[in-house]
Amino acid sequence: MSDNLKGACIIGQSGGPSSVLNATAYGMITTALAAPDITNVYGAAHGIKGVIDGILYDMASESMEELRYLPYTPSSELGTCRYKLPDPDESSEVYDRILEVFQKNDVRYFFYNGGNDSMDTCEKISRYMDMVGWECRVIGVPKTIDNDLYGTDHCPGYGSAAKYIATATAEVWKDACVYDTGTVVVLEIMGRHAGWLTAASSLATLTGCGPDLLYVPEVDFNLDQFLNDIAKVRAARGSAVVAVSEGIHYADGTFVSEAVASATDGFGHAQFGGLSARLASLVKEQLGIKVRGIEFNLLQRCASHCASKTDVEEGIMVGKDAVLRALAGETGIMVGLEREPGPEYHCITVPVPLSTSANAEKLVPLDWINRSGNGMNEKFYYYALPLIAGELDRPTEDGLPRFARLVKDRI
Amino acid sequence: MSDNLKGACIIGQSGGPSSVLNATAYGMITTALAAPDITNVYGAAHGIKGVIDGILYDMASESMEELRYLPYTPSSELGTCRYKLPDPDESSEVYDRILEVFQKNDVRYFFYNGGNDSMDTCEKISRYMDMVGWECRVIGVPKTIDNDLYGTDHCPGYGSAAKYIATATAEVWKDACVYDTGTVVVLEIMGRHAGWLTAASSLATLTGCGPDLLYVPEVDFNLDQFLNDIAKVRAARGSAVVAVSEGIHYADGTFVSEAVASATDGFGHAQFGGLSARLASLVKEQLGIKVRGIEFNLLQRCASHCASKTDVEEGIMVGKDAVLRALAGETGIMVGLEREPGPEYHCITVPVPLSTSANAEKLVPLDWINRSGNGMNEKFYYYALPLIAGELDRPTEDGLPRFARLVKDRI
Repeated sequence: MSDNLKGACIIGQSGGPSSVLNATAYGMITTALAAPDITNVYGAAHGIKGVIDGILYDMASESMEELRYLPYTPSSELGTCRYKLPDPDESSEVYDRILEVFQKNDVRYFFYNGGNDSMDTCEKISRYMDMVGWECRVIGVPKTIDNDLYGTDHCPGYGSAAKYIATATAEVWKDACVYDTGTVVVLEIMGRHAGWLTAASSLATLTGCGPDLLYVPEVDFNLDQFLNDIAKVRAARGSAVVAVSEGIHYADGTFVSEAVASATDGFGHAQFGGLSARLASLVKEQLGIKVRGIEFNLLQRCASHCASKTDVEEGIMVGKDAVLRALAGETGIMVGLEREPGPEYHCITVPVPLSTSANAEKLVPLDWINRSGNGMNEKFYYYALPLIAGELDRPTEDGLPRFARLVKDRI
Repeated sequence: MSDNLKGACIIGQSGGPSSVLNATAYGMITTALAAPDITNVYGAAHGIKGVIDGILYDMASESMEELRYLPYTPSSELGTCRYKLPDPDESSEVYDRILEVFQKNDVRYFFYNGGNDSMDTCEKISRYMDMVGWECRVIGVPKTIDNDLYGTDHCPGYGSAAKYIATATAEVWKDACVYDTGTVVVLEIMGRHAGWLTAASSLATLTGCGPDLLYVPEVDFNLDQFLNDIAKVRAARGSAVVAVSEGIHYADGTFVSEAVASATDGFGHAQFGGLSARLASLVKEQLGIKVRGIEFNLLQRCASHCASKTDVEEGIMVGKDAVLRALAGETGIMVGLEREPGPEYHCITVPVPLSTSANAEKLVPLDWINRSGNGMNEKFYYYALPLIAGELDRPTEDGLPRFARLVKDRI
């Protein structure tokens, strides 16, 4: 394979959105537009679905002025999808369609930004193009607020979600102790299998307003200990702020969200609200105190007004480096982040085999969790604090966020 | 009454917290500390309850360095209460206790920061002190995110809550259209009787990402129209973002939150989650589409990381002017905000009789709501936009908010 490969590129976004998905798009789009070897820069509508459906936008039609707003625009400007490709060895129909679109538009570069499933998509497309002999450089670009990708120190998107969660936890902590009657607040945080996001609420401890208790899926949940823990904190300081991951489960693997639902209503009636509302109801029933359940919900993945500067900068960097690495001849890799040794935090990008990240989930190390299994320790703070560092000078208009307004010219 | 009155002052915070309650405390505390006529500045723990219980903090013990963080610290540093005083003509026991504390500490100034109920407290204390001949200047200082106080253009606290709600609505709107399958999001916003906070979500329209539909308590709710409205928006643009006030009610006055609960579960089982979760469940059932309910919950009243600069500055101003007006001889008033005529937004403080604001709720004018009763019009934008204007240069440490750390020395 020669280093110089001339042709068009397709950029796709995939999976759950984040605050910095568009920052990475900005990095990819502007670097690709500036590269002489890349003849056309196309954005795929809703990831690989847009490729299959032939819905591509010409990024050269966008003004640089509007593109500059992308790093401050949450969610996904091109749209994403949750679409699992079949194994190319077993089924080729969808790949024939992708190849057709690649050939018709002379696509020689494919950049796909997402999580585990997206790395799986990249790996399969890369394998298929090799198989049929269509020269095309395929690069995966990491993104997930869940931070559960292997092969990278952390994922762009996590830092901003973590910063929002830590900030909101500290603010809710302040609110929870406003009356002298005290209250218990149960915060429900995303993360079905990995506790990275819930762990981030512990960073609020450094403001003096951290969660009193914290439960992640990496530790089996025990309801009696949970109720005991809360009763102890209540006795000690009146109020209690408790962070729980949506994915906490009992030792037998049953999700608490399901178990609590059936414990309180065994009649098959519709259950409203999530885990936090149900746990709040249970704590109230058992301990007879005022309890409020709060679900951070979509806010934790789209609150770009509270994005981490470090995260946005790294989001742009992985996008830019993905394009530069492809131009230099790399393919079949994901661009990972590697923390450089030394007292100052600094990350560089490194190539990671796609198979490392595809379909695997990285959990929070158990020795970063305290002995009682209800809080984090300094090892986690050391890891996570640099990721939430820095305030953005984000653009606003009339006191409101100014988002990018793309024209999205279809080709 | 002479203009010069020497003695101590008590500062109290009351009711639900806000992002700028402590900004007003900052204005009151620093102005009182600098006033030669005010011999001592006391903060009451949990409002009037702290006065009755004799729990007062000496504000002179606080360092100016820490006080400077107050305007950026959410909730209430002194603590608040929800405590309704009896009529002083009918019961004097609690007033005797208050008088005792006033006399013991030579309290000649009483500043109370809160909503309708707090103005009622002020009015009663003012009347009682007059009755028994204890010379004391009593000033009410407005605060409520609900913005439902009469006698003031708006309330400090509202602008920051409105800014958070508008910002989060725009961000959620972006998130809601990420997949091509579309989704409906029902946002539940505070406001039991007045729709000011829900109306604020309409400001997101100016970012291009406003709620498609919006329902406030000022308009009777019609479930069929609600479902029709959503179906129409869905058909037109795939996704729909719907803002509802927690206080929406049917024409007969029944709160929708109660009616929807009994409609879906008439067996008296515990109901989890709030109105948004229940409406989401109903929309899903009736229209067969993906729906998510999101409750902004406490975040809308404590998200000081998204506070309005205008709101924080006005919060400080009403606190400062309350003290200056008392020093100049005023008493028995609330410090209101008045919008000055002219093209540029500017507010000054004006004295308002306490009785104007006590126990009354100001609603959103009906001609600020669109004809279909499901959105706001330009009159509301004109009113509310200046209130959310300006970004704070808020203090942070390690990427987290830096809150004030008071020593709270008890006298």
